[in-house]
Amino acid sequence: MAIKIHGNPFSPATQRVLVCLAEKEIEHEFVVIDLMKGEHKAQQFLTLNPFGQVPALEDGDLKLFESRAINQYLANQYGSKGTELVPKDAKKQALTAVWSEVEAHPFDAAAIGLSKELIVKPMFGGAADKAVVEENKEKLAKVLDVYEARLSASKYLGGDSFSLADLNHIPSLNALFTTEIKAVFEARPRVNAWAVDILGRASWKKVLQILKS
Amino acid sequence: MAIKIHGNPFSPATQRVLVCLAEKEIEHEFVVIDLMKGEHKAQQFLTLNPFGQVPALEDGDLKLFESRAINQYLANQYGSKGTELVPKDAKKQALTAVWSEVEAHPFDAAAIGLSKELIVKPMFGGAADKAVVEENKEKLAKVLDVYEARLSASKYLGGDSFSLADLNHIPSLNALFTTEIKAVFEARPRVNAWAVDILGRASWKKVLQILKS
Ligand SMILES: N[C@@H](CCC(=O)N[C@@H](CS)C(=O)NCC(=O)O)C(=O)O
Ligand SMILES: N[C@@H](CCC(=O)N[C@@H](CS)C(=O)NCC(=O)O)C(=O)O
Repeated sequence: MAIKIHGNPFSPATQRVLVCLAEKEIEHEFVVIDLMKGEHKAQQFLTLNPFGQVPALEDGDLKLFESRAINQYLANQYGSKGTELVPKDAKKQALTAVWSEVEAHPFDAAAIGLSKELIVKPMFGGAADKAVVEENKEKLAKVLDVYEARLSASKYLGGDSFSLADLNHIPSLNALFTTEIKAVFEARPRVNAWAVDILGRASWKKVLQILKS
Repeated sequence: MAIKIHGNPFSPATQRVLVCLAEKEIEHEFVVIDLMKGEHKAQQFLTLNPFGQVPALEDGDLKLFESRAINQYLANQYGSKGTELVPKDAKKQALTAVWSEVEAHPFDAAAIGLSKELIVKPMFGGAADKAVVEENKEKLAKVLDVYEARLSASKYLGGDSFSLADLNHIPSLNALFTTEIKAVFEARPRVNAWAVDILGRASWKKVLQILKS
């Protein structure tokens, strides 16, 4: 098995690559990095990602990190396997790139802020900072207003087919849906249908099975 | 002239696309959007970018936004013109994508924090928050330590040739070099040589000429 993914089941960035591997039906070995033990800051892991963050991927002698760059590589290199995640047509590809950037910037900024307050802090016995939650909730709502309009023009963010632009959202959607933020999605019918659709994909269900075990 | 870039000369994200257009030697029209007048929130501009931020690009009937997605499109679509910014080889391309993501995430997070405090606030008569500056300076120093090691293995971040991964840094480097943060770069010889090298490119000098006029 040539492909190894090093990561942690609880890490959304790791999950992002796992769901991509599942969509592309790429066989792989999952090497669990124990963040509590600091394995991601150990010399061995730093040769895979000098920033000491999960995930990292090895494909033969190629070493990659940054979940979105890994997914772009998998989508291009294994184009003919599994789901086509990056359209071949240059213009469609460009729109996929635009909405992938939207995930990586305005969406992620709000999503990470909310996850930190509503998931990570409580996990370690802390309490959410209500002002920070409100601020990020407002930011997310504005982003989702744009999504609502976009999803009235096309079924998925990048266009009429499911693509990397949608896929990269899955781990954050899954996490936010366990919190009060679910309501922000539910208030927007097209956004909600889109989120439910992509969270229901066989690839993600497979990843959830792996994460449970 | 088929390509129109809508943006503002003072916007680093706009500058990122301008320097890419210069490297690719792509003829274009620069439509200035007056942020002070709120032109980026006017209906006309929102049809180009529903998030109301500059830059946006039109190539015939294709409308794009998000500077890094625009640059990826220009690099792919105009592959044969000007500088090759994305290698054709799949593995080299993957490394370019990794280091482009590094710019977009850990590097940009620190750079934006610093620009806000040290450039934007003073421009509007405010004072920098010293604690925020220190925090982001430390973050940037850690990122540049990784760059220093990387640049001892290859001349540029993505590999031996200048690529999109380097180019996307130029506007932030240019801005930070006008502040006390220049010293953080100068303290790392390979990082400093790399920054001076890419800031000295003919493409960037051309953009600086446009910005002055
Ligand atoms: N932009 C990176 C983010 C990676 C990241 O934040 N990883 C987290 C887990 S989701 C991590 O390793 N945290 C431990 C640390 O930063 O020390 C990516 O998308 O891969
Ligand atoms: N991630 C976007 C960021 C764009 C951005 O932040 N643009 C700023 C100028 S550099 C802007 O339009 N600010 C006005 C606003 O946000 O209202 C990109 O790279 O294009």
